[in-house]
Amino acid sequence: MSRWEPNARGRLEQAALELYAERGFDQTTVADIAQRAGLTERTYFRHFADKREVLFSGQDALTELLAHTIEQAPAGVAPLAVVGRALSAFGAVLDGRRDHARRRQDIVDANPSLQERELIKLALLTDAMAHALVRRGVAAPAAHLAAEVGMAVFKVAFERWVRADTTDGLTTVVETTLAELPGLQD
Amino acid sequence: MSRWEPNARGRLEQAALELYAERGFDQTTVADIAQRAGLTERTYFRHFADKREVLFSGQDALTELLAHTIEQAPAGVAPLAVVGRALSAFGAVLDGRRDHARRRQDIVDANPSLQERELIKLALLTDAMAHALVRRGVAAPAAHLAAEVGMAVFKVAFERWVRADTTDGLTTVVETTLAELPGLQD
Repeated sequence: MSRWEPNARGRLEQAALELYAERGFDQTTVADIAQRAGLTERTYFRHFADKREVLFSGQDALTELLAHTIEQAPAGVAPLAVVGRALSAFGAVLDGRRDHARRRQDIVDANPSLQERELIKLALLTDAMAHALVRRGVAAPAAHLAAEVGMAVFKVAFERWVRADTTDGLTTVVETTLAELPGLQD
Repeated sequence: MSRWEPNARGRLEQAALELYAERGFDQTTVADIAQRAGLTERTYFRHFADKREVLFSGQDALTELLAHTIEQAPAGVAPLAVVGRALSAFGAVLDGRRDHARRRQDIVDANPSLQERELIKLALLTDAMAHALVRRGVAAPAAHLAAEVGMAVFKVAFERWVRADTTDGLTTVVETTLAELPGLQD
């Protein structure tokens, strides 16, 4: 085993995605993933805390993107519209990678423990958005409500996009889904 | 050990709540819980699938309550308002039990694996609400959006209620939180 491990993280992610799809999440071990990637278990655990984390890479960058987008939005934009901008930026990260997103989502949807992990990751992003809104002067109760409602809209938009035959990008689906909100209230 | 085990379920729930609060979730075993309740581990596993489930009793009754409230709402009420009625009914179940809800929430908030379990339980309730809306004729995309947004509002309302010094009941807090939604959009 070479000490030189170029793109070990990406190789482990790819190997995990393949094996989880082929054998199922429960039937795959970290040893299997490391072997498929041509790396050691020790290398795996240097990058990921457990068997689930390999499917949730990029959380820190995403947190930063959402917070930054919210902080940079022009003054005077309504809280939920500010959150909408952040979630459109989130959508832009996934646009053009729908096949990958769909394969990953099939794996997550098939396993309750992965669904649980996904939900807490989204909850952490929600908290980050709420805190960013507070930093731009939105009162904490309104900030939390806007962040939670925005994430609810994003979940629905993501589901529509990842499962649909539409050619619309996720950014567009986020915007159209958010625009449906007033119609549900009257 | 007597074969006669009156209210075993409730005794196990009470014992778990006490021990999780006293020692922490990770430091408590199912054997500890059974012993505190004066029951056997075998009895525990007859009632609960794992160490977490004991904190999430009543999911079936709650699912039924939400679905029933949505199905019985008068015709012509907007989807999000129908969901609001269901969540007010959810709130009524907890009203008058805030001390208990707060102690339980302190335990959940201190443990990521309990937070994950809680989030998936709420996601299952969200799905049940969406399906009930579809049964009353709401188009599936609107139904899912209304259910997700409604649950987002409920999460915020619950957090306000369980942490607040207000004397308002959760039912009232759900209604006032839902009424804040239009103000976040303009």
